[in-house]
Amino acid sequence: MEITGAILVGSADRVGEAGFAAVDPATGRNIGPDFHEAGAADVADAAALADGAFAIFSETAPEARALFLETIAEEIAAIGDALIERAMRESGLPRARLEGERGRTIGQLRLFASVVREGGWLDVTIDPAQPDRAPLPRPDLRRRNVALGPVAVFGASNFPLAFSVAGGDTASAFAAGCPVIVKGHPAHPGTGELVARAIRRAAERCGMPEGVFSYLPGTTNELGAALVADPRVKAVGFTGSRGGGLALVRIASERAEPIPVYAEMSSINPVVLFPAAAKARGAALGEAYAASLTMGAGQFCTNPGLVIALDGSDLDAFVGAAAATLGQSPAQQMLTPAIHSAFGRGVDALRANDAVETVARGPAGEGENQAQAALFGTDAAAFARDPALGDEVFGSSSIVVRAADPAEIAQLVGGLEGQLTATLLFDEADEELVAPLIPLLARKAGRILANGWPTGVEVCHAMVHGGPFPATSDSRTTSVGALAIMRFLRPVCYQNLPDHLLPAALRQDNPYGAPRRVDGVLTLA
Amino acid sequence: MEITGAILVGSADRVGEAGFAAVDPATGRNIGPDFHEAGAADVADAAALADGAFAIFSETAPEARALFLETIAEEIAAIGDALIERAMRESGLPRARLEGERGRTIGQLRLFASVVREGGWLDVTIDPAQPDRAPLPRPDLRRRNVALGPVAVFGASNFPLAFSVAGGDTASAFAAGCPVIVKGHPAHPGTGELVARAIRRAAERCGMPEGVFSYLPGTTNELGAALVADPRVKAVGFTGSRGGGLALVRIASERAEPIPVYAEMSSINPVVLFPAAAKARGAALGEAYAASLTMGAGQFCTNPGLVIALDGSDLDAFVGAAAATLGQSPAQQMLTPAIHSAFGRGVDALRANDAVETVARGPAGEGENQAQAALFGTDAAAFARDPALGDEVFGSSSIVVRAADPAEIAQLVGGLEGQLTATLLFDEADEELVAPLIPLLARKAGRILANGWPTGVEVCHAMVHGGPFPATSDSRTTSVGALAIMRFLRPVCYQNLPDHLLPAALRQDNPYGAPRRVDGVLTLA
Repeated sequence: MEITGAILVGSADRVGEAGFAAVDPATGRNIGPDFHEAGAADVADAAALADGAFAIFSETAPEARALFLETIAEEIAAIGDALIERAMRESGLPRARLEGERGRTIGQLRLFASVVREGGWLDVTIDPAQPDRAPLPRPDLRRRNVALGPVAVFGASNFPLAFSVAGGDTASAFAAGCPVIVKGHPAHPGTGELVARAIRRAAERCGMPEGVFSYLPGTTNELGAALVADPRVKAVGFTGSRGGGLALVRIASERAEPIPVYAEMSSINPVVLFPAAAKARGAALGEAYAASLTMGAGQFCTNPGLVIALDGSDLDAFVGAAAATLGQSPAQQMLTPAIHSAFGRGVDALRANDAVETVARGPAGEGENQAQAALFGTDAAAFARDPALGDEVFGSSSIVVRAADPAEIAQLVGGLEGQLTATLLFDEADEELVAPLIPLLARKAGRILANGWPTGVEVCHAMVHGGPFPATSDSRTTSVGALAIMRFLRPVCYQNLPDHLLPAALRQDNPYGAPRRVDGVLTLA
Repeated sequence: MEITGAILVGSADRVGEAGFAAVDPATGRNIGPDFHEAGAADVADAAALADGAFAIFSETAPEARALFLETIAEEIAAIGDALIERAMRESGLPRARLEGERGRTIGQLRLFASVVREGGWLDVTIDPAQPDRAPLPRPDLRRRNVALGPVAVFGASNFPLAFSVAGGDTASAFAAGCPVIVKGHPAHPGTGELVARAIRRAAERCGMPEGVFSYLPGTTNELGAALVADPRVKAVGFTGSRGGGLALVRIASERAEPIPVYAEMSSINPVVLFPAAAKARGAALGEAYAASLTMGAGQFCTNPGLVIALDGSDLDAFVGAAAATLGQSPAQQMLTPAIHSAFGRGVDALRANDAVETVARGPAGEGENQAQAALFGTDAAAFARDPALGDEVFGSSSIVVRAADPAEIAQLVGGLEGQLTATLLFDEADEELVAPLIPLLARKAGRILANGWPTGVEVCHAMVHGGPFPATSDSRTTSVGALAIMRFLRPVCYQNLPDHLLPAALRQDNPYGAPRRVDGVLTLA
């Protein structure tokens, strides 16, 4: 398995007019080979191929599409240790983390294979004809979901496997029947190419149409903009910064035909600590908080960036334990120089804020792009007054907000922006305070956790990795878990078509064995 | 039941600073009483009340919400003939049509009551804990759908009951658990107020929270803009013109928190006539085409505004019969002076187009705002060259495009904008030509009909009244039929909450009896 630096447009390897290098964040040095920048012509050709592939790929039977997803998983596994080693060098992430992430990526592809086979995503709904109905007969009406069209995927730097080239966006778009064009993340171009070649091989092995997948590496905003603006692209999946996500949303909304953008952007993942829990196990919770905060240098979308709690000595114990743990938590390698500087700017802004106390810092690191963790404190009035205190600082930085009473906690929650997660730390004696907060938090977040930490997003059927703006650009969806497939589908109704002209999913004999709603009654195959 | 012209903000009747009148389109004269223009203060107060009502209303049990919908239906029926008579005067629509529309409106409310009770819309999904899983235990994860928040509804002029104050948008938003604020359509303010009072009475009878419904009549764009811009409004339903819909989309996207707009806008509903059908029954089809086109003065979103067919003598027979029928089809009353003038401008532009032949006109009408039907013809090259020929002319105007061969038909279809419907008129001998067009049309339209006419939209489970842009602003949905409820929902996941703190829908004992997906397996209650 070779990394050539090529642009992968359908089955062709291409060179670009300009080049760029992968950077080892631990040394700041370039890693070979030279990578080619994809340009406007590559976008246009990839989009044309994807558009051509759509007719065939979108109507592949569930079994064929599931096999394709499983073959991608197989091909990724077959890359072997070369993938882990390359990802370690490009991301600075440790081996165990990347091996886990590879397992998650493979598991995710297999989950979507099972989802595709089960057929619930088709939402097959049949209202049979009622020829004798008065005053007017009812026609035969049958509805299924169809794929939206080619999808552009923008991976994230912080999960070079699970949220990148063959990550959740790609897996769910393929599952829905959409060809995929990945804009490769410049922070891990070699890793990206290895995975892209695995997908291409899987497409070839499965006889998928040319153009079902293309991979466009590059560093420029123009590349992404051209991809989202291409009229043949019909939806966008993105994980990254608020600024980046909003830029894509704007481009998509200004097209002659606007398209949906699923951007997962910004979240500080509030944690509410309740008094009985703080009293019973404040110190232990404080240690666990610091551990969750510093895990992976805090580079998770669901990092706990905010704790809200009642002021008092129990909270002091929590904060004290967190500060002690964080103070001994070694500095960690960050993903890229840009992320490291943004983290530094975010921390410095909080340190310089008169209304904010710097509670603890982790040890400074040696070497390039090391994250020095930071814990801050403030009170409810200051937090409510200054919206900047609620901005995400991507990395191991968090702020503890002291509230005077439960009403102030509810007010703080009511003033929050949309979030991916909200966490409740409580004991039985807290439940009277907890219960009324749950519906408030449901208006703010996509996932509500009890007595855990938000880092760690299970890939399963019930997961929601989404939430109200600005956590995402579309609160009606998730980017992790089985439900993610629904982002790339739309319903089509067929009226009075003879059975043999209907798409297979809607034929009377139910060849895919999908669940169906018939005359309003859900029936299993 | 009295029409007072008031603004209905929650349970209060209000007066406005300015007034407007209802107009009888048949005479151009005002009909009393004076109506009050809702303003910015009414919007703010209605939104504050709706926001306050949300917590309670969104968590009402399905049975309570279903009863509310059924009580609205009952209260609308109880208005009796006064509703029909008022609607006849304000819309110019005939009695039979409005009685049918009332039946449809009531049936639609009852359909959503049954949908709410069944519980599939909750999409309850449970991945039980796996405490012994290695390397990490799996938490208990449970997902359900929750209401988005208060919804703003903009009704249409052409269905003063079924797409207006208590139409599909309102019914589906209530069904989802969203309070509703209706911006009353100025073309039927008396009808609107009667229905608004029926909803208010139903809310009172059912003990629904103050502010679950408000009704803001008015004529200004500012009123609608203020409603969509209000931060407490979380989604918008709209049926109307492309310009109006896009204006609301723009306002919604420029908010600090962008929100979804479901705008059903513009469609010319292509009909493809195939050769064997044209040969066997061209004249009969032509008569039926003219009948569908002129029904209700052509004022349907699904009016057949375009026919595509192979050129030749069989098509001549079709067009000849259509022209003869249309030529004898009496002029009909249009809904409003504005719609009548827009229709006139659209017809005049086609008449003045050198590439377009005026095939037939209906008789001119006597009296105000009468629609004189129009049938036009052109060839494929001209249609492809001039995008204006594909613009919707709301009313009884349609154009027949003659294609040289099946490839030209496919090209024409490929060049169409998004549509609500696409219709195939064919016989068995045509099926080889029909089959490859079906997937092409599925990319363009929300509903594909065989051997029928697109006017007449069944309110049922399988219906899709939606389609790619510009038919709607969001192809992933429908504004008619049971699926419309999904527009106003978003998923929330609950992790490791004790059973008694979970929302009822997710508790172990399944109190709502909803279908559930457990560990990926769909199970009926």
